[in-house]
Amino acid sequence: MDGRIVVINPNSSEACTRAIDAALDSLRGPEAPEIVCLTLAEGPPGVESQCDADGVVVPLCRLAERHAPEAAAFVVACFSDPGVVALRERTPKPVLGIAEAGLLTALTLGERLGIVSILANSVVRHRRFLRALGIEGRVAGDIALGLGVGALEDAATAYARLRAVAERLRDAHEADVIVLGCAGMAGYRQRLEADLGLPVIDPTQAAVGMAITAARLGWRTAAQRTRG
Amino acid sequence: MDGRIVVINPNSSEACTRAIDAALDSLRGPEAPEIVCLTLAEGPPGVESQCDADGVVVPLCRLAERHAPEAAAFVVACFSDPGVVALRERTPKPVLGIAEAGLLTALTLGERLGIVSILANSVVRHRRFLRALGIEGRVAGDIALGLGVGALEDAATAYARLRAVAERLRDAHEADVIVLGCAGMAGYRQRLEADLGLPVIDPTQAAVGMAITAARLGWRTAAQRTRG
Amino acid sequence: MDGRIVVINPNSSEACTRAIDAALDSLRGPEAPEIVCLTLAEGPPGVESQCDADGVVVPLCRLAERHAPEAAAFVVACFSDPGVVALRERTPKPVLGIAEAGLLTALTLGERLGIVSILANSVVRHRRFLRALGIEGRVAGDIALGLGVGALEDAATAYARLRAVAERLRDAHEADVIVLGCAGMAGYRQRLEADLGLPVIDPTQAAVGMAITAARLGWRTAAQRTRG
Amino acid sequence: MDGRIVVINPNSSEACTRAIDAALDSLRGPEAPEIVCLTLAEGPPGVESQCDADGVVVPLCRLAERHAPEAAAFVVACFSDPGVVALRERTPKPVLGIAEAGLLTALTLGERLGIVSILANSVVRHRRFLRALGIEGRVAGDIALGLGVGALEDAATAYARLRAVAERLRDAHEADVIVLGCAGMAGYRQRLEADLGLPVIDPTQAAVGMAITAARLGWRTAAQRTRG
Amino acid sequence: MDGRIVVINPNSSEACTRAIDAALDSLRGPEAPEIVCLTLAEGPPGVESQCDADGVVVPLCRLAERHAPEAAAFVVACFSDPGVVALRERTPKPVLGIAEAGLLTALTLGERLGIVSILANSVVRHRRFLRALGIEGRVAGDIALGLGVGALEDAATAYARLRAVAERLRDAHEADVIVLGCAGMAGYRQRLEADLGLPVIDPTQAAVGMAITAARLGWRTAAQRTRG
Amino acid sequence: MDGRIVVINPNSSEACTRAIDAALDSLRGPEAPEIVCLTLAEGPPGVESQCDADGVVVPLCRLAERHAPEAAAFVVACFSDPGVVALRERTPKPVLGIAEAGLLTALTLGERLGIVSILANSVVRHRRFLRALGIEGRVAGDIALGLGVGALEDAATAYARLRAVAERLRDAHEADVIVLGCAGMAGYRQRLEADLGLPVIDPTQAAVGMAITAARLGWRTAAQRTRG
Repeated sequence: MDGRIVVINPNSSEACTRAIDAALDSLRGPEAPEIVCLTLAEGPPGVESQCDADGVVVPLCRLAERHAPEAAAFVVACFSDPGVVALRERTPKPVLGIAEAGLLTALTLGERLGIVSILANSVVRHRRFLRALGIEGRVAGDIALGLGVGALEDAATAYARLRAVAERLRDAHEADVIVLGCAGMAGYRQRLEADLGLPVIDPTQAAVGMAITAARLGWRTAAQRTRG
Repeated sequence: MDGRIVVINPNSSEACTRAIDAALDSLRGPEAPEIVCLTLAEGPPGVESQCDADGVVVPLCRLAERHAPEAAAFVVACFSDPGVVALRERTPKPVLGIAEAGLLTALTLGERLGIVSILANSVVRHRRFLRALGIEGRVAGDIALGLGVGALEDAATAYARLRAVAERLRDAHEADVIVLGCAGMAGYRQRLEADLGLPVIDPTQAAVGMAITAARLGWRTAAQRTRG
Repeated sequence: MDGRIVVINPNSSEACTRAIDAALDSLRGPEAPEIVCLTLAEGPPGVESQCDADGVVVPLCRLAERHAPEAAAFVVACFSDPGVVALRERTPKPVLGIAEAGLLTALTLGERLGIVSILANSVVRHRRFLRALGIEGRVAGDIALGLGVGALEDAATAYARLRAVAERLRDAHEADVIVLGCAGMAGYRQRLEADLGLPVIDPTQAAVGMAITAARLGWRTAAQRTRG
Repeated sequence: MDGRIVVINPNSSEACTRAIDAALDSLRGPEAPEIVCLTLAEGPPGVESQCDADGVVVPLCRLAERHAPEAAAFVVACFSDPGVVALRERTPKPVLGIAEAGLLTALTLGERLGIVSILANSVVRHRRFLRALGIEGRVAGDIALGLGVGALEDAATAYARLRAVAERLRDAHEADVIVLGCAGMAGYRQRLEADLGLPVIDPTQAAVGMAITAARLGWRTAAQRTRG
Repeated sequence: MDGRIVVINPNSSEACTRAIDAALDSLRGPEAPEIVCLTLAEGPPGVESQCDADGVVVPLCRLAERHAPEAAAFVVACFSDPGVVALRERTPKPVLGIAEAGLLTALTLGERLGIVSILANSVVRHRRFLRALGIEGRVAGDIALGLGVGALEDAATAYARLRAVAERLRDAHEADVIVLGCAGMAGYRQRLEADLGLPVIDPTQAAVGMAITAARLGWRTAAQRTRG
Repeated sequence: MDGRIVVINPNSSEACTRAIDAALDSLRGPEAPEIVCLTLAEGPPGVESQCDADGVVVPLCRLAERHAPEAAAFVVACFSDPGVVALRERTPKPVLGIAEAGLLTALTLGERLGIVSILANSVVRHRRFLRALGIEGRVAGDIALGLGVGALEDAATAYARLRAVAERLRDAHEADVIVLGCAGMAGYRQRLEADLGLPVIDPTQAAVGMAITAARLGWRTAAQRTRG
């Protein structure tokens, strides 16, 4: 196998990285590309603002470049997709942002996307992002839990809100597929899908799935050619 | 492994199915989901018109349903995505159309998509499809080779035109990723990518890559719930 | 008079064809183009799914071609517009789909369109259709009655729901023109318009109106030229 | 027959009104709604600027209201659609602008619209109009002849330019239907259609066709209800 | 200083012009461009319909042209932007419509615009305008007070409704910036902003701000060149 | 006067800051808000990549916050608008990005925007930005000079290319207003405008113009309220 999938968690929480790593087990296999999950030591405890997101880009690019020789593709495991555009300018290897990959994948599973976000300001930022991606016409709604990244770990509180928000997206906004708007929600995916009766996408899994395909097929982007 | 990827070539050409099958080898592995490629005996020699595309839907649904018990996900291997919407109404298992999956995947590899089509009337039909998908703002251009499905097999003629069209998409239309607009172009992907210096997507590979992820993660769509 | 308007009901219900035919009487006249309504014997009792819609295309094209010598224009009288694109590839004579014609006509009578659909899955399919047509920005809402084509004939039940849905489109969604989303609702148009105080479009009447103009003016499309 | 189609030419040229009137003969019949063409005496010789267009609205509304008792529908026969929105606020009878009606009708005859305009500043104004209508995604191109309304009458000069512009729309812009961007071009429609091999829409004919349908079916808009 | 800002109130109310004038005091300064507010004697008491708006264009252009020699830029102080396009065709000096300038300025202060309109038919007209401007995707909502221009002067009634509508835009529509949809609401701006906790834009102030910049920098548009 | 306009040049070139400062003289006045131009010492020599842009955000926010007590509004003087969204989340004072402000202002001066960019990869990034802003439908073209920020200072080479690119935008792309896509092009604005016959916007001037209005009117955004 000619390269690894390098997944970078841009926050500094090792617990968060471990949870991401665990959620990727179903995509591993004896001859599948290896999946390595890294924590960005320089990152904040959680990426919860635009300043947090922009601030991780330089160290994230440095970390990616240290791991470039063995990498077949990169995944940035934060729903703000920090550093994705920057990294694409610097490497011809595929770079998957989990927001972009999760949302595009969801378009194949439903007609109208519902997004569960952490904080109210996430929703504001997502609006710009969805227009930039060009798919805002396919979004049914985007609702915040009102919980920061850290609070997601308290399953008792977090799951109840997650479910209530997802039900609202399904019933009042006519969403027929749900995208989890934070890598830290991965642990609730299966339970939510069962309770909801709709497909629920963990965007990190979706992005790593795309990265595996890219690695196996050897795709290279036009970074060097048209972006210099 | 809990299910196969069932790839259906909706034209009746066994040679075409064999070529598709061969292009999927790099996505196979000892513990990966099995990939089975089927030929639709009732299909036309090549799907080259809207009537061809609409006409295969009923037998295609029947063929899919015969293979449903062992299927984890379906892929329709024709760039008109015939039967994809119909099949989605009838099964909760993920159904990937190669046009939809190829184009959405390409959005992660470039900013502007260039599409190489077979015939002039394909381009007309794609315009409706791209708007329906909601991504027409990301398309740099769509140019026809002026060759039917059968003529693609004559490598001498076909490749020269393919390359000329792709170069026009790159140079005059500023495309930075190319999507092959027919399953029957798969055999030219690697050579074209090398000659062009841009990523070239075989949409069947992209769709099967998505289907593998879907199969491994057990996604089910909302078919039964909101579409009845 | 140099040609007839050939209206094809793609379901197999003669009762449905008779109702459509009756609703067209106000568009007939001694020197007006003749309007002939045909039933597609091979069609399902009602077109209620994408598979139903795709499945009628081949026999519908055959039926249209048998009537081509005397036809000035064709109308497909089903709100899924089955076969409209296929037929346009095969004949230079104008082909009007009632969804397309009804919606475009409604744009001249109001700012925001309200659509009354039969089933929930119709609404899902219409979303793709409205984007493909490029007018999704003008749609106020699309609400299903939850009644199949057959149940529309039971006036007691059907009209009450129709009225309730149309009032919701007017009052909660700010629609100022209503389009009936099924040829089988034609009989309720005048009563609904009177009760509602908004224009209500029977799409078959709108399409036949356009077909009459096309027939009188002798329009021919570019089928032979740019779509081959 | 319960009402006339009142067509208003908002320029002051009787010759222009007579030409419009003649082009409508094929839509007349013994039992068809009567079509009456009026000249706006207060109008400019040709509507060639936004100020011309806005300036005719008040007298145009007055003229329309004088003819309201016998009118079933109104048509404003100028491609700037002056007074159409104003008139719709004042009467529940259908008001058709020839630009709006011509463009929407053209969407049923082709995938991509080509517009032939009189002056460069017309093209600038049309851009706003096409966005307001919500169909800019369906326009292939809009090219000016560089001739004012008056100069259109000189067939020798005008037709050669008209044909050259229309061929450019067909060949370089991939238009598959042409809309004449001025009521004064009506006389060239048939010749251009024959020379071009594409459908050519005289927007006044298209609008009057829609008005006849509206008159026969007795449509009334929501003017009184939601616009007060 | 090389030129004045000429602000034209297109209704005939001197009281309205005085209120507009007063609201511009904070943009005046000893060396700032002079701001002159004019009343259009030929205008209606309030511009409340499309016919009102179109009807003022010719006298408004005449008034502007009389003041052209000393003008550096023009502002049309009515949220229907009457005459803005017409005037742009006639002068190379910048012409600011308060709707256009107010809405574009608001885009720099919030993600989602809320518009407070006077009458229900204003909202209908704004929809066309917002699409023509190309920013409809950024509008959270547009709600009418149900009060004409004159009734705005009765502060007791008017302010309560204004506040209720603005709170609804903030709370139910997620607007994060409010644009006052009539020049006559200027007097309530500061109070509303304080009560609401969101930025509230008086569009006349925004337009005059832009006009001052344009005057200081000497911008000239392409009127003579590409629009002749 | 209650506050200054704080303009931050996020690259480390003092020469560049001085040039920006000089271009703002025409917006200064004895009673106008003071305009202070700062250089970001931590910035790169020129912001020429996404990594450059993202990398300046944290120090830029720190610099802004040090100057917050005296600031009425902030302007980020780089056409990538680095830190604009981040800063908006952290302060209720208006934050103007020069790309956003320059483009929105240009919409009041022309129908179709032409953008002159420095490098090919700028054009790629602008596409995302223009969609995020929601105004991509108003852009005629965006063409790169193929010169980095530093090379802009060599007037002999730079101006010739600038003019050639702007003429292409005007003649081949039908742009009727030009926006300079880099703060470092300010010195060429007047000469280009004279040579071109179209309005040419220096985006820093446009943004500072908006900031002055914002400062005079005391606008505050919803940062504290809906974004926490």
